[in-house]
Amino acid sequence: MSAKKSVVIDLKFERREIGAALAGAFSGRAVLHASDSGLDISDARYAIVWKPDPNIFQRAPKLEVLFSGGAGVDHILSMPGLPDIPIVRFVDESLTNRMSEWVVLQALSHLRQVPAYLGQQRERRWRELSQPEAGDITVGVMGLGVLGLDSVRKLGIMGFNVVGWSRSGKTIEGVETFDGGELDAFLARTDILVGLLPLTSDTRGIFNAALFGKLRQGGALGKPVFINAGRGGSQVDADLVGALESGVLGGASLDVFETEPLPADSPYWALENVFVTPHAASASDVRALFRNAEVQMTRYEAGQPLEHVVDVKAGY
Amino acid sequence: MSAKKSVVIDLKFERREIGAALAGAFSGRAVLHASDSGLDISDARYAIVWKPDPNIFQRAPKLEVLFSGGAGVDHILSMPGLPDIPIVRFVDESLTNRMSEWVVLQALSHLRQVPAYLGQQRERRWRELSQPEAGDITVGVMGLGVLGLDSVRKLGIMGFNVVGWSRSGKTIEGVETFDGGELDAFLARTDILVGLLPLTSDTRGIFNAALFGKLRQGGALGKPVFINAGRGGSQVDADLVGALESGVLGGASLDVFETEPLPADSPYWALENVFVTPHAASASDVRALFRNAEVQMTRYEAGQPLEHVVDVKAGY
Repeated sequence: MSAKKSVVIDLKFERREIGAALAGAFSGRAVLHASDSGLDISDARYAIVWKPDPNIFQRAPKLEVLFSGGAGVDHILSMPGLPDIPIVRFVDESLTNRMSEWVVLQALSHLRQVPAYLGQQRERRWRELSQPEAGDITVGVMGLGVLGLDSVRKLGIMGFNVVGWSRSGKTIEGVETFDGGELDAFLARTDILVGLLPLTSDTRGIFNAALFGKLRQGGALGKPVFINAGRGGSQVDADLVGALESGVLGGASLDVFETEPLPADSPYWALENVFVTPHAASASDVRALFRNAEVQMTRYEAGQPLEHVVDVKAGY
Repeated sequence: MSAKKSVVIDLKFERREIGAALAGAFSGRAVLHASDSGLDISDARYAIVWKPDPNIFQRAPKLEVLFSGGAGVDHILSMPGLPDIPIVRFVDESLTNRMSEWVVLQALSHLRQVPAYLGQQRERRWRELSQPEAGDITVGVMGLGVLGLDSVRKLGIMGFNVVGWSRSGKTIEGVETFDGGELDAFLARTDILVGLLPLTSDTRGIFNAALFGKLRQGGALGKPVFINAGRGGSQVDADLVGALESGVLGGASLDVFETEPLPADSPYWALENVFVTPHAASASDVRALFRNAEVQMTRYEAGQPLEHVVDVKAGY
C-alpha cells in the first residue's frame, strides 16, 4: 500500500499555531514545511499556502492542487510561475461567522453613533442623540459570495434594509440585488456600503472618489458610511481620506488598506468616525483549514470533483 | 353620539416631538396636556404617562386605564395614590428592535475587543489580537420578556451560545433557560451577562458584588463582561465599579445607572473597557406609543380585554 500524497505548507501564520493544528491532521501523509529552506519538497502533490514564497513552484514542481489559506486568492493568482492546477478556496463556517460578526458590529456602531457617544463619554457628557433605527437605513453589500451572503442575512435580521451587488448579479430571496451594470442605481440606494469584494482586475481601485460621490446623501444618518473588509487593493486610500475629510462620507470602518501594515503616518488612525482594525475582521482557523483541505484531498483521490475551486479567469 | 373618552398626556419627552406625533392621532378624542398646570383634566379617562407628576391622580380622578410611555413601569408603580386600574405596558416592534441593536452591538464590541483596538488606533499600532469567535462565548440574558426574547434570538443568530434566566422560568426553543432558584448555575455558565430586568423589589440591587463574583472566570474572553440596559436601580454602582477596578469583571456596557443623569464625577466615564450611553439603548417612538394606546382604547371601548396589562403584584 503506497503512502498517501504528501502536503507542503507555506502559511505565513504563527508556526506554533500551525504545529498545534497539525496534531492529528493529515494522517498517513508526509507534511513538509516550506519554511525549512533546505528541505526537499519536490515530491509534494498538495500545497496549502497563504502569501507563499515566490519560489515554491520551482521547489515543488509536482503539485496537483493548491489550497488557499484564506477566503481571498489574489495572493496566489498574482504569483509568477503559477502552475495550471486547481486552486481551492478556504470556505469555512468559522471564517464566515467571524466576518459577519465584524460587519454587523461595524454597521451597528455607525447606526448607533458610537463615535459620538465615545466623544461624549470622554467629556463626561450625558446627552441623548436623535437615533434612527436600523429599518431607517439601507446597507448595500458589494460582493455576494459566501461571506457577503451571510452578512446580508444577519444585517437583515438586525433590522437593516439590505441590498446587494455583484458583478454577475445574484438572486437572494427577499433581498433586492443589482448586477455589474446597475452599480449607480445600487449606490444611490445605499446609506452604509459594505465591501466584501475579491481583488481582481475589475475590482482594483473600485472604491474611489467617483464611487463615494454616488452614495446616497441625506439618508437617516445624514451622510453615507463605508465599511471595507474585502481587500485593500480595491480601495483608493487617498480618495477615501479625501471623502472623509470633505464630508462626502460621514464615517468608515476599515480592516484593509492599500499598504498593510497601515503606516504610522496614515491619516486614518486619527480621523474622527473611522474605526481601524489590522486586517483582523476574520481569521482563518488553522484547524478548520486543514480539516477542509483534507476533505478535498480525500474527494480528489477518490475521483470526486473538488469543491470551492477558484475561477482563475474571473479572479475569485 | 357622545364624544370618545378623553386622554391626558404626561410624558417627560420633548413637547415638540409629542406635538408632531399627535397630528392625526386620537381622532375624536379630547387630548389634554398635564403640563398645562392650570388646565382642568378632571374628565380624562385615559392617561399616557412617563415619569408623571405625582399629583396627576388627584387632578384626574376618573382615569380608567393608564398607559406607560416606556417598556418599564416602575416609574408608575412607585407612585403614591396609584389608582387600582389597569396599567398597559408599551410593547412595540421599534422599541424591541432598538434594544436588540444596542445589546448585540455591545456584546459584539466586547467579543471583538473594541476597547483594545481603539487603544491601538490611538497609538497608531497595527497588531492583530487573538480572537475567540461568538461560538466560544456564552451570553446569559437575565429577563425574558419581549425585549429579552428578541435579544436572545438575535445573539444566537450572531453565533453566540445563549442561556436565559427569568424569575418564573421560561421555555425557549433551542435555548437553555434557568429560573429564580437556579441563578448560581446560570451565572457559572455566563461569560457576558446581559441585564434586561424590570425594576421590582426582587431585582433592586440584584447586580451586586456577590453576583458578579459568581460569573464564569477564565472563559474565552478571560474575564466576564456585564451589559445592562434594564434599570439602573437593579445595579449597585459601587459594587460594579469595584468589580471592574479589581478585575472581577473585564468590561461593561451600561445604559442605566443608579443616578441619572450619571454625575460628571462618576468613575464609569473614564474606566477602561466601559461603554457609557445615556439611557438611550432604546427610545420610545411617540407615534408608535400613541398608535398602540389608541388600539387598546378601541379594544377597551368595544368590551375586548386589554393587552400587555401589567401584573402589579409582580411589579412588571
